[in-house]
Amino acid sequence: MIVAMQEKATEDQIDAVIDAMTEAGVEVHRTTGESQTILAGVGPTASLDLSKFEVLPGVMHVHRISSPYKLAGRGWRPEGTVIQFRNGVKLGSERVHAMAGPCSIESREQIFETARHVKASGGAFLRGGAFKPRSSPYAFQGMGIPGLELMREAAEANGLLVVSEVMEIAQIEPMLPLVDLFQVGARNMQNFNLLRELGQVRKPVLLKRGMAATIEELLLSSEYILSGGNYDVILCERGIRTYETATRNTMDISAIPMVKKLSHLPIVGDPSHGTGRRDMVAPMARAAVAAGADAILVEVHPNADKATSDAAQTLYLDQFDQLMKELRLIATTVGRTM
Amino acid sequence: MIVAMQEKATEDQIDAVIDAMTEAGVEVHRTTGESQTILAGVGPTASLDLSKFEVLPGVMHVHRISSPYKLAGRGWRPEGTVIQFRNGVKLGSERVHAMAGPCSIESREQIFETARHVKASGGAFLRGGAFKPRSSPYAFQGMGIPGLELMREAAEANGLLVVSEVMEIAQIEPMLPLVDLFQVGARNMQNFNLLRELGQVRKPVLLKRGMAATIEELLLSSEYILSGGNYDVILCERGIRTYETATRNTMDISAIPMVKKLSHLPIVGDPSHGTGRRDMVAPMARAAVAAGADAILVEVHPNADKATSDAAQTLYLDQFDQLMKELRLIATTVGRTM
Amino acid sequence: MIVAMQEKATEDQIDAVIDAMTEAGVEVHRTTGESQTILAGVGPTASLDLSKFEVLPGVMHVHRISSPYKLAGRGWRPEGTVIQFRNGVKLGSERVHAMAGPCSIESREQIFETARHVKASGGAFLRGGAFKPRSSPYAFQGMGIPGLELMREAAEANGLLVVSEVMEIAQIEPMLPLVDLFQVGARNMQNFNLLRELGQVRKPVLLKRGMAATIEELLLSSEYILSGGNYDVILCERGIRTYETATRNTMDISAIPMVKKLSHLPIVGDPSHGTGRRDMVAPMARAAVAAGADAILVEVHPNADKATSDAAQTLYLDQFDQLMKELRLIATTVGRTM
Amino acid sequence: MIVAMQEKATEDQIDAVIDAMTEAGVEVHRTTGESQTILAGVGPTASLDLSKFEVLPGVMHVHRISSPYKLAGRGWRPEGTVIQFRNGVKLGSERVHAMAGPCSIESREQIFETARHVKASGGAFLRGGAFKPRSSPYAFQGMGIPGLELMREAAEANGLLVVSEVMEIAQIEPMLPLVDLFQVGARNMQNFNLLRELGQVRKPVLLKRGMAATIEELLLSSEYILSGGNYDVILCERGIRTYETATRNTMDISAIPMVKKLSHLPIVGDPSHGTGRRDMVAPMARAAVAAGADAILVEVHPNADKATSDAAQTLYLDQFDQLMKELRLIATTVGRTM
Repeated sequence: MIVAMQEKATEDQIDAVIDAMTEAGVEVHRTTGESQTILAGVGPTASLDLSKFEVLPGVMHVHRISSPYKLAGRGWRPEGTVIQFRNGVKLGSERVHAMAGPCSIESREQIFETARHVKASGGAFLRGGAFKPRSSPYAFQGMGIPGLELMREAAEANGLLVVSEVMEIAQIEPMLPLVDLFQVGARNMQNFNLLRELGQVRKPVLLKRGMAATIEELLLSSEYILSGGNYDVILCERGIRTYETATRNTMDISAIPMVKKLSHLPIVGDPSHGTGRRDMVAPMARAAVAAGADAILVEVHPNADKATSDAAQTLYLDQFDQLMKELRLIATTVGRTM
Repeated sequence: MIVAMQEKATEDQIDAVIDAMTEAGVEVHRTTGESQTILAGVGPTASLDLSKFEVLPGVMHVHRISSPYKLAGRGWRPEGTVIQFRNGVKLGSERVHAMAGPCSIESREQIFETARHVKASGGAFLRGGAFKPRSSPYAFQGMGIPGLELMREAAEANGLLVVSEVMEIAQIEPMLPLVDLFQVGARNMQNFNLLRELGQVRKPVLLKRGMAATIEELLLSSEYILSGGNYDVILCERGIRTYETATRNTMDISAIPMVKKLSHLPIVGDPSHGTGRRDMVAPMARAAVAAGADAILVEVHPNADKATSDAAQTLYLDQFDQLMKELRLIATTVGRTM
Repeated sequence: MIVAMQEKATEDQIDAVIDAMTEAGVEVHRTTGESQTILAGVGPTASLDLSKFEVLPGVMHVHRISSPYKLAGRGWRPEGTVIQFRNGVKLGSERVHAMAGPCSIESREQIFETARHVKASGGAFLRGGAFKPRSSPYAFQGMGIPGLELMREAAEANGLLVVSEVMEIAQIEPMLPLVDLFQVGARNMQNFNLLRELGQVRKPVLLKRGMAATIEELLLSSEYILSGGNYDVILCERGIRTYETATRNTMDISAIPMVKKLSHLPIVGDPSHGTGRRDMVAPMARAAVAAGADAILVEVHPNADKATSDAAQTLYLDQFDQLMKELRLIATTVGRTM
Repeated sequence: MIVAMQEKATEDQIDAVIDAMTEAGVEVHRTTGESQTILAGVGPTASLDLSKFEVLPGVMHVHRISSPYKLAGRGWRPEGTVIQFRNGVKLGSERVHAMAGPCSIESREQIFETARHVKASGGAFLRGGAFKPRSSPYAFQGMGIPGLELMREAAEANGLLVVSEVMEIAQIEPMLPLVDLFQVGARNMQNFNLLRELGQVRKPVLLKRGMAATIEELLLSSEYILSGGNYDVILCERGIRTYETATRNTMDISAIPMVKKLSHLPIVGDPSHGTGRRDMVAPMARAAVAAGADAILVEVHPNADKATSDAAQTLYLDQFDQLMKELRLIATTVGRTM
């Protein structure tokens, strides 16, 4: 950490800051410039709330120098994390994957038809929500565990892996035998109790970036899972909230190369939530793969217009098939396969 | 709801939209303008996901006309909600209240000393966190229920009410006898399962606005609690995330009069989280009361510099006393007492 | 336009709104629903400030139905605008182009060396700033017209076109013989007097999106140029301001397909300003082309580390050459050449 | 400046950074920690583009330590700037002032009637726009200099000062004899050529914060005027762009105490643009004064509903009179008069 003192800071103020840093277990190096004194602190600063130094008298700014995350940092595993699934699928490696399916599991017929098509088009993961609390209390709320069982069956029948959202700790256990990849939604990105529990599980976790979360905060949240011993974490960019209203969110494509730079964890792009519009999904999926995404996550539905949720951003099955063809071409241009 | 068709929409496209609306249970009125057709829909639109009409061929825009919330709307209780606490304190009425205390309960001594001062300065509620999952997994995580028991004792000894944050459903029951007001934090504003459970409780709930939540979304979230039959909901503005970095958040003071206009629920201002800086708390608390807040929520600590969390935004006890004097003056200028 | 009245609006209030609309030259169609009255207005609403109806008593919401822009709308030229330059280069057509060069023109040697390399790598436009007012008054401010003359010479010698930023009306005339494409910077996107003057010019204009501008506002600004009779406008996405701090701006790749949908104007991606970091330029340029950009605009410099401005986001010449190879591959996957 | 090297930075990388800093005229102090090296640089860093060090190999972060502004900083004039107008009015002193008038000057009758009322209610400045380029090219564009002459006459007749917006350099000279205070609008906050010219003028300037500008950027822009020798600069908070759509902008009340802390310049609150809604103006004006504003700037019009621009946010004359009464009370509670 670095503490920059104000130009007119007194020696007493400087001493008081040095004392506070020392008390916090930090070793202090002082640089006395012509007009300004700078205190560099070395030690266990990752666990310190640095803002409390910022309001001490005479202090101008406090900067954190070391990353607040460790296990998620690129330096911890420079070669990158590759996550291996039971059927041999590897994520984070040379092959780009597709995760596709409806927003909500609605019926046996719906999920089986989707699964067949996802497989036929080259997808590796079947996605679908079983628990759907919605922003309005007056809307459809999901099929629950029976829905997940249907999805598991449909996935098995087609050689697909299952990814589905877990919303609270109590759902982890019943979901465990039914999913291959736990999804944590944007609204739960900072539900630290849930993250900590998922750190105890030995199944991969797909962690979505919160709508107002910085990339650093996303990495800090992943640290909760990693520090529990679950090293199979996949991150997901799904759009952030900005002032623009033409799209539902602004999909931050630059988060993809930035995560690659800062972290060793695989990163997935979700253009369905990222844009909220069916007609934007294909160009943004292409952009995600061109920028280096390890997988894309898209909503598809045999009868997209009648989907009980997220209808506007859900692809028709033939649109998904067309998209996969385009993505396969893009993947080769960035030295990958799909 | 209103569907505006594109200028070149065909009759077939218009018919398809009318059919989709009718199928959704909406009664359609058509206006055929010189260049453009407009379809007005009347019916159960509050529970509809309107975006699915937006991507139908030939559609330009879809607008929701009626509020998506009902019970939280001003029209439902035009005279405003007044919440009555067991010791006679009323919130949402002519008197402005203060809720104060440390970010985290740390010790018997700390919470008792705080309680005495909060009472002496004129506060009505003692606040303090028992469960403190933090954005870094390497930081202090709270005292839990034993901390709450200490706070209850300190509050009783000083004639104060207790407000504390509930973070998951399992905490509701053990907290029930210990708190007078459940606080739902910004990160849980859209934890709909938690909100639904709090709708079943018969104790007031203080619902904080999420860091990236619109005022409409805050009202929709309150609807989850209200629709369960718990009508004692208090809203709280605590700062939103913007591009500005000088303050930790941007406290949206305009949310206070806007909530008063749109809803009947009381609204509280939290300048501690709203600014993240001790030296900004007083002016922003004054601004909140001047704009019509029913209460303010501030962090105070007998030894603010050493607080285990949120030290930078925590007031010293004498600063709180001074603030209360200022707020009392402001309250009278807007026709209230404090 | 649509005016939705509040549920409890009186007949007098409704009549007053109808009168105000009629007075503004709008023809009114009334729909009286069970609980709510809706007024649809047809007429010259593009030039009306609709918010003044919003604050009339009894009004709930006012929605603009027709686009506030006309000439920039897709409907005005459904086949898309193709801009033809004097040397036969076409922008907005099947071929994707590159515009490259230093942030600031610094010397004859610098601009000639850059020009040779841009041409050799396949670029069509040489870019470079002559007027560089900076956010700090203490920084380098540009070479002015003599710099532009050098750039023109360097471009001619290499068969390149010249694009450079115009910052005020007085610069238009001296720049006219020296540039092939006037660039309007993000800070001037709503400098309407400048835009109006550029509407009188018969040279193409590259209009950059403001840092806090919506796509609709970008299109409205282009309308200022178009309505003067200059139909050769190219739009440019260069990053918007969000709360994320890892990148200088958040490059809104979705603006590219959204502009394609809403407008007939060509759209360019600027990953240098969009990210502010050299190591992000290549993946974001690839993403832009994958999403449908008609050209990319990048900063390159023979000695990137010593560039007098924007050094951090400027590519080395060999990085640019490598990028062009990657983009050529991407272009073919989306059915284009480069 | 501080350069924090990555944990694995080599000695060669560290040396290269030290060389680059030295070459830029900066004196370097090195701190070699257990895991990380930190380089503190002292010297003329205000004029350096620090981001170019950020992309050097082995660098983790670069932090600016000293403020990039000097003349605008609190330290330059700790007692605060008081601006004296020709009729004895002082701004930045104990008395809080009101600046009021229509968005656009429309007619002799309108501006005279407004002036009489502004004076009668206790205002000191008459505001009104003469040049009104609008975001749509199809809207009213202002009366120009003849409008300003009318406003000057109306102000003189009522003992008021004149404040009006200057939009380009060419307007400065004709406006000079007609205004007492030049207003620079939000869209021109970074029109550095205009600011530099206003630095040569010897009349006060009211500089509005840009819609996407940080407080630091506002202060940097003021530095352009100050460094020309015009020390009479007044800053103005008028709302920033956020994702919230209930209000036109989010008025950042915390900018008021933050400017007071960082700078010696007076600060004004503009609740009309800050909210865009007439019914929000009064509570937000009260909040601004409670938070320490030196003046408020509001739009009033004798016939607010029919104002040619900004009708929705314009107060009726009697609303303004009522507001002044409220503000006078608030001012006394913060130790000021009005």
